[in-house]
Amino acid sequence: MADKPLTPLLDTVAAPADLRALPREHLRQLADELRAEVIDAVSVTGGHLGAGLGVVELTVALHAVFDTPHDRIIWDVGHQAYPHKILTGRRDRIRTLRQKDGLSGFTQRAESEYDPFGAGHSSTSISAGLGMAVASELQGTPRNVVAVIGDGAMSAGMAYEAMNNAGAMDARLIVILNDNDMSIAPPTGALSTYLARLVSSPAYRGMRETAKTVTKKLPQIFYEPARRTEEFARSFFTGGTLFEELGFYYVGPIDGHDLDSLLPILDNVRDAKEGPILVHVVTKKGKGYGPAEDSADKYHGVSKFNVITGAQAKAVSNAPSYTAVFAESLIQEAAEDPRVVAVTAAMPSGTGLDKFAEIYPDRIFDVGIAEQHAVTFAAGLASEGMRPFCAIYSTFLQRAYDQVVHDVAIQHLPVRFAIDRAGYVGADGPTHAGNYDAAYLGAIPGIVQMAAADEAELKHMVATATAYDNGPIAFRYPRGDGLGVDMPKRGEILPIGKGRIVRQGATIAILSYGTRLGEVLAAAEKLAALGLNPTIADARFMKPLDEELIARLATSHDVLLTAEEGSIGGFGSHVATFLASNGLLDGKLRFRPLMIPDRFVEHSTQADMYADAGLDRAGIVATALATLGYDEAAMVAALAQV
Amino acid sequence: MADKPLTPLLDTVAAPADLRALPREHLRQLADELRAEVIDAVSVTGGHLGAGLGVVELTVALHAVFDTPHDRIIWDVGHQAYPHKILTGRRDRIRTLRQKDGLSGFTQRAESEYDPFGAGHSSTSISAGLGMAVASELQGTPRNVVAVIGDGAMSAGMAYEAMNNAGAMDARLIVILNDNDMSIAPPTGALSTYLARLVSSPAYRGMRETAKTVTKKLPQIFYEPARRTEEFARSFFTGGTLFEELGFYYVGPIDGHDLDSLLPILDNVRDAKEGPILVHVVTKKGKGYGPAEDSADKYHGVSKFNVITGAQAKAVSNAPSYTAVFAESLIQEAAEDPRVVAVTAAMPSGTGLDKFAEIYPDRIFDVGIAEQHAVTFAAGLASEGMRPFCAIYSTFLQRAYDQVVHDVAIQHLPVRFAIDRAGYVGADGPTHAGNYDAAYLGAIPGIVQMAAADEAELKHMVATATAYDNGPIAFRYPRGDGLGVDMPKRGEILPIGKGRIVRQGATIAILSYGTRLGEVLAAAEKLAALGLNPTIADARFMKPLDEELIARLATSHDVLLTAEEGSIGGFGSHVATFLASNGLLDGKLRFRPLMIPDRFVEHSTQADMYADAGLDRAGIVATALATLGYDEAAMVAALAQV
Repeated sequence: MADKPLTPLLDTVAAPADLRALPREHLRQLADELRAEVIDAVSVTGGHLGAGLGVVELTVALHAVFDTPHDRIIWDVGHQAYPHKILTGRRDRIRTLRQKDGLSGFTQRAESEYDPFGAGHSSTSISAGLGMAVASELQGTPRNVVAVIGDGAMSAGMAYEAMNNAGAMDARLIVILNDNDMSIAPPTGALSTYLARLVSSPAYRGMRETAKTVTKKLPQIFYEPARRTEEFARSFFTGGTLFEELGFYYVGPIDGHDLDSLLPILDNVRDAKEGPILVHVVTKKGKGYGPAEDSADKYHGVSKFNVITGAQAKAVSNAPSYTAVFAESLIQEAAEDPRVVAVTAAMPSGTGLDKFAEIYPDRIFDVGIAEQHAVTFAAGLASEGMRPFCAIYSTFLQRAYDQVVHDVAIQHLPVRFAIDRAGYVGADGPTHAGNYDAAYLGAIPGIVQMAAADEAELKHMVATATAYDNGPIAFRYPRGDGLGVDMPKRGEILPIGKGRIVRQGATIAILSYGTRLGEVLAAAEKLAALGLNPTIADARFMKPLDEELIARLATSHDVLLTAEEGSIGGFGSHVATFLASNGLLDGKLRFRPLMIPDRFVEHSTQADMYADAGLDRAGIVATALATLGYDEAAMVAALAQV
Repeated sequence: MADKPLTPLLDTVAAPADLRALPREHLRQLADELRAEVIDAVSVTGGHLGAGLGVVELTVALHAVFDTPHDRIIWDVGHQAYPHKILTGRRDRIRTLRQKDGLSGFTQRAESEYDPFGAGHSSTSISAGLGMAVASELQGTPRNVVAVIGDGAMSAGMAYEAMNNAGAMDARLIVILNDNDMSIAPPTGALSTYLARLVSSPAYRGMRETAKTVTKKLPQIFYEPARRTEEFARSFFTGGTLFEELGFYYVGPIDGHDLDSLLPILDNVRDAKEGPILVHVVTKKGKGYGPAEDSADKYHGVSKFNVITGAQAKAVSNAPSYTAVFAESLIQEAAEDPRVVAVTAAMPSGTGLDKFAEIYPDRIFDVGIAEQHAVTFAAGLASEGMRPFCAIYSTFLQRAYDQVVHDVAIQHLPVRFAIDRAGYVGADGPTHAGNYDAAYLGAIPGIVQMAAADEAELKHMVATATAYDNGPIAFRYPRGDGLGVDMPKRGEILPIGKGRIVRQGATIAILSYGTRLGEVLAAAEKLAALGLNPTIADARFMKPLDEELIARLATSHDVLLTAEEGSIGGFGSHVATFLASNGLLDGKLRFRPLMIPDRFVEHSTQADMYADAGLDRAGIVATALATLGYDEAAMVAALAQV
């Protein structure tokens, strides 16, 4: 064994090739330094902590064994890739994680040649890896492709589709199943039970204690041809048949924190010549940082924190989050109506439904990372007269689009969609932006679509959705805190398809859909200070449109603006289509829809992103003035004097 | 054993209760009559034949054993439900299948209380059934829920998501795996290999020969309590561990055409008290009709046919189908570019890629019913410099919406989407309508979207997509035959984002997107005959919009119409948004977007559906005249005189 180096090793690793040049005996120290660096960096930036800490050794081992970037390592979801980023030339920017113009919180092709596939949503890595492996064969360019996927992500249908396809092909694909028995929520589903059974087997438990001894005693076996050592790896085999029945060669379970196990087994997996291989690696989320190990869910995504105490900085807010208001409102409805049930796809905490679960454990269903199933399961509940609330982030509801069309809308089934994280989400960036739901649901006939202007409105919409049995109904609300408005004791049932006038004025009208209303009202104040008298309306509904209200605004004003936290094809486009189809744009009306720009916007703060989109008060004022025909520069000067 | 009845039995079965009142010995005859009735009916109507013939005995057995409609039977996909429809009070209308105002070709809640869940797309039944089973428990209303799902449908991720969730719950759900080793395409994937292994086992092969003898010898065993007979069923067990590892109790394989096996086993499954059960039933698609048995793929969906000869009536066409033009064009591109590869999700024949497969078997990938995986697999191929064409029907691409956003568009990967069956599809009805892709893709930044105006345009678009490497690109084309236009020898590379003027006129302009152009030109002829001189343009691109062309049309005409085979939120809504945002509607222009109405339209002919939408020549003329301010009645009278 080489001597322990005197100097820090991490400073010597500018790229994975440097790591591969180190004696393997030094990799343990490197891993320790890497772990410390991750903890320190995330304490400064906030972000995903536990997942990265769980794969420190695996990251070191993969870069030691595989010839990156020629070999491809795909990190499923990508939020566990901070150690990977540090080792692949991004250490100098690691403290810019998730900041504007800084590193992404996920893998990203544009960021590094070591990120062959970007991620953010789970369960994509096997499909992408299979495509890469097939391309490598077609191109005659041999390379290893390794997909690292968590056990939680394995519950998603697309991971199974990919396994089923890969298992029938000869492609050289290596899947590392990172089994930490904990995705975001506690694991659900038969697969997690199955994995737990593999890990609890005597063979694995014995292996944990003896692996190091074995590898020390029999080091030569790891450097022999693959065939023979595979047999050694196979001696750990304690079941695995599910994966073998899907056509994979199964190796494991392996202690994912023990480099003396990981390195030789990965060497041999790399050198195996045949078909797809699944390596079952067991890790602990938050490994090596006490607070994160002890409370893995609280350290999945963290704010900035104190490294010594683990205490996370929490922004002080005077208003409850929209998520909390949704959950409390639903609990209130459920208390009076036993038909109310809730469905989440592995997001009980993110959607606030963990609170619901405490009170109504038999009326909440966490189906795992399985949005397609979640929606059709909810449709099944609705078909029998239940009142299911399917709470899914806007970005994840994309996973269940066909089910919304085919299983819910065509059958007019009253599934209630609680669409959290609508609009820009800030630090999570474009992979998690909830900008499209208004458009993609808007194309489907027969779905009532609402957006909450503030937290009191959200409460009304939960009540409205509860009472509505005539078909599907959806309401969207953003990430973050409400405005601090007075909260009603009970939600009111809103008249379907009716908006409200918030401020009656003349000449210019602004019709808001969703929480832009706050900025619209602030813009109205600025406009009023200039002697203008805008009318402000809250549409509440995108479908059905309040045609009477819109026609009234259109015919009694010179200028009409819309404002929303959504893309083209959504609320503003629907209003434009309505106005044009009904001849309301034939006359003098000047109509301008304000919406999120038609491009992907990198992570930043939500406020920055809306300012960039011209959807903050300044942007709204600027568009209003320009459309009214005022000289903008002169008005800005005038504004400055107000 | 009762005597064989003298009269036809099917006439005596008005509802399943009548069937249950028959001696079980008579059910064999009933099944034979039912099979003859299905063949005769489909010979008149066309439709899905093979799938229904394969489940005749299963249908009889399910209604004999389960108390429908109190017990729920969910037919996955639903195209195998013709025998079920005949037995559940719809025999008198069975010869209206798939005709306007007739029975749907799928199950449909609105059609019958015996259809507890509508279908059309595959792999939804387990999710829906689990929802129903949970509702039954919450409501304290015991009932059996049976989901019948094909082996092909089992390759879809949502079926796995549902199995994984159901397997972890105690819900009383019965899944019948209808294993006919043939969904639409030959089976692909590891699961089908696995099922084939179960079926080829000695235990099953032996059982097929002996089951009848066994049941005759030991009839009493089937009427004993469940526990004991389960053991008997379990004696057929030859593997099954994959399903058992997912938490299901596995029974099978069973010969699905042998009522003497089916009835007692289903009796016992019904009476079992615990958790989810999977019954593996082996059937033959097309069973009992020689032509369909011999060529299962050709008899999956049929035209009207001659019962004696099996010869299908084929409509005579002077033009190739869009599907064929796509396939031939892609083969031409592939001949010159080895990077061109094709991906289909279990639709090699439907997409025309079976032709491609004959020539380039190593460059086509049929991933099974797995659209999510198909898209991300294609993204993986594209990330390595291949030029993948992902050919998926518009309605099925809905299944992969998140993958298009997250794995393709955000990463700017040049996946080519060949979107077949865009617009109305006729007899398949609302579950298969391809009306939404323009809108749901249009919301996503950075996807080039095209629609072919005729078959020559489609050829150009295949060439354009091949050459385009700057990001994702999609082109849509309808079900059916082209217009018979002259075909170019090679497709030309179109300038991205540029439309074309087809007819230069004045006063009124019609901007077409897609194959409505034929009707638009016919409408132009009618308008010209009235002394009008319309300008006609083909947009070719929805994204990027040809802003210069649209601005020119808008500023040089009094009236601008758009026409498309798509929903709100699509092309017309994008044009409306562009016009409004740029002040082009502030003046005298009257703009009217013509699009598919915002409601689900039941099956009919495509021509009827477009007429209903006002998107045929008559409808376009009517809108043009009305927008120009002509008195429509007077103009219609004038038109009649032309």
